[in-house]
Amino acid sequence: MVVMGVDPGAERLGYGLVREDGQHLKAIAYGCLHTPADQPLPLRLKSLYRALKELLQKYQPNALAVEELFWGQNVRTAMMVGKVAGVVLLAAAESNCPVFSYPPQVVKQAVTGYGRATKRQVQYMVKELLGLPAPPSPDDTADALALAICHLSQVVKERC
Amino acid sequence: MVVMGVDPGAERLGYGLVREDGQHLKAIAYGCLHTPADQPLPLRLKSLYRALKELLQKYQPNALAVEELFWGQNVRTAMMVGKVAGVVLLAAAESNCPVFSYPPQVVKQAVTGYGRATKRQVQYMVKELLGLPAPPSPDDTADALALAICHLSQVVKERC
Repeated sequence: MVVMGVDPGAERLGYGLVREDGQHLKAIAYGCLHTPADQPLPLRLKSLYRALKELLQKYQPNALAVEELFWGQNVRTAMMVGKVAGVVLLAAAESNCPVFSYPPQVVKQAVTGYGRATKRQVQYMVKELLGLPAPPSPDDTADALALAICHLSQVVKERC
Repeated sequence: MVVMGVDPGAERLGYGLVREDGQHLKAIAYGCLHTPADQPLPLRLKSLYRALKELLQKYQPNALAVEELFWGQNVRTAMMVGKVAGVVLLAAAESNCPVFSYPPQVVKQAVTGYGRATKRQVQYMVKELLGLPAPPSPDDTADALALAICHLSQVVKERC
């Protein structure tokens, strides 16, 4: 089973694809999509949408996991993140990939065992769980991988 | 010149296409797109995206006008409206249609002459300005037509 985690942001969009094979987790692709801040937003959304569609097409994930954020932001930020998140959900729907969303506390709990873990703790545990040579950076990428791990841990729990 | 106004909402998305021909304004199409509240959001966004792409393809507007909202909402609503707005901006970009955004006060000022006009005043003035048989309803549709009128009034001002 392959899960794609996505951390949608206006400046940077983190993504991470994780394969679960029995008891093993393996990162098959991860990174961060950047769009130029001086470009009009509709064109930035178009670039992100096309890049996401390509990733979904290439890796054919069984599910997409995104963060569910309803607080800790102001309305302007929420509106901006919402615009990017809308395009992520659309890309998933157009690729027939079901979407699951998790609150940040649940994601942190799943990867570190502690719902209030710091960004650095999440990066470290993602590196350990996936056997990466170094903690994934920036933290948008680590968060995306953490989302994929979180969804996989839910699926494994449900199997038991 | 044809302008498409869009009022993005989670439950209802208002749209209105207005043609300006010298001094005359004519509504060429308007309405409200609904998506079932019990459907998963990615599928609702996909339906809206496809319907918007069809409208953009059919009427080939020269510009798309949307509301610029940064306050008066809570973070949960802003995130939801943002998701729909992201899909609107993407549909415009994919159709090579430039996007212009206006704060609600500017839209109200443009159609009623008063930046704090009520929903009903906007509906009435949209009916008058476009020579419609009745005020457009629901107010999402009236707001979308008002956005198109607002953008056209800016273009006419710039011509002078």
